[in-house]
Amino acid sequence: MNPQQAPSPRTTIKRVPQRADYERDTIYQILDEGLVCQVGFVDHGQPFVIPTAYGRVDDTLYIHGSPASRMLKTLLQGIDVCVSVTLLDGLVLARSAFHHSMNYRSVVVLGTATLVQDAEQKLVALKAFTEHVIPGRWQEVRSPSRQELAGTLVLSLPLAEASAKVRTGGPLDDTADYQIPVWAGEIPLKLTATTPITDLRGCEAPGFQTSPRQIEVPIYATNYSRQ
Amino acid sequence: MNPQQAPSPRTTIKRVPQRADYERDTIYQILDEGLVCQVGFVDHGQPFVIPTAYGRVDDTLYIHGSPASRMLKTLLQGIDVCVSVTLLDGLVLARSAFHHSMNYRSVVVLGTATLVQDAEQKLVALKAFTEHVIPGRWQEVRSPSRQELAGTLVLSLPLAEASAKVRTGGPLDDTADYQIPVWAGEIPLKLTATTPITDLRGCEAPGFQTSPRQIEVPIYATNYSRQ
Repeated sequence: MNPQQAPSPRTTIKRVPQRADYERDTIYQILDEGLVCQVGFVDHGQPFVIPTAYGRVDDTLYIHGSPASRMLKTLLQGIDVCVSVTLLDGLVLARSAFHHSMNYRSVVVLGTATLVQDAEQKLVALKAFTEHVIPGRWQEVRSPSRQELAGTLVLSLPLAEASAKVRTGGPLDDTADYQIPVWAGEIPLKLTATTPITDLRGCEAPGFQTSPRQIEVPIYATNYSRQ
Repeated sequence: MNPQQAPSPRTTIKRVPQRADYERDTIYQILDEGLVCQVGFVDHGQPFVIPTAYGRVDDTLYIHGSPASRMLKTLLQGIDVCVSVTLLDGLVLARSAFHHSMNYRSVVVLGTATLVQDAEQKLVALKAFTEHVIPGRWQEVRSPSRQELAGTLVLSLPLAEASAKVRTGGPLDDTADYQIPVWAGEIPLKLTATTPITDLRGCEAPGFQTSPRQIEVPIYATNYSRQ
């Protein structure tokens, strides 16, 4: 929690600076736990914010998509981009409407995205996408064909200019409000997996599995066990 | 699912248009279920994407914050804004890395934000924030004081230019890949509440409640019962 460590003036958090965190570990942890990022870019003066999957390898964030994607085509012009990842950790119920809040961990990355042209790096990035969602999955499934590789654009964004913002804990009420007889506190929120839905279209395959294997990922709290 | 109903060319979904939905009901439902939106705006040519809470009243989206907020100060210049809300509904595990996907419901709103100056409308908006998070909460807690109202900026964004994009269902694999003996299907994800953490600082108040009351909100699946 040291605002002095901000990598640049424009990633210095100004509102509620005590919630700022510029540590690499915090930033990586949030990015690795998140599943969807929001990509902000400007096209003909209009800002757009588009949700998409992503992967991280060391200090590089990867996004990908079809060569027909407007977002990717626009980013390929070498324009500035802002990527935001937000994890919602809880609702904070105070005794006044004003002091209601949310607990969250968020990361904002600024930079310029670059097309990944090196074939090996592209494969590393695509592996990161799959492994990000389901660790171990890359080894289990069919690897991308030459045609699929050609049909996928991968863009890299350095994590050089990134900052995290974190709120934890309960409500902070005005002193007089502690007399108000209403429940106050935090309701923690967690993204959890419910019962997996097996795709039965492959059920005639030899060795067909009706249950996913055990994987240790925080969100898969339930029902994700090896057959 | 009718792309012809897009309210404007720039909210017409071009990538995977069969996932587009311009129905008011779909858009409102996603906005009402979401808790955090991502606000995209341009400041000196640089796009920023900032997560924040929001409220909806009819066809208006409200965001709010401190008068010191750069985001609000920038938006008050009457510039274009893009607000994105994404609900992650599931992981889609295919038999090839290429066909892995996610199920989601997302809304993108384009427009210009306006300062809410009318005192009554401002109060309606602030009520919408509180009720959005916890229906019924507005009546239970202390209403905003004159000072708090003065210290809060509320901006309105019409939902005139909005579109939704939705993916549901399992993986769509290449025909040959159905022979691969790996589990495939959907792992549904759900934002759930875990055990509430009571703020004990008010426990000397008469009528102090140690448990939150029963509230019917989809995410509060557990442990949120009246004392």
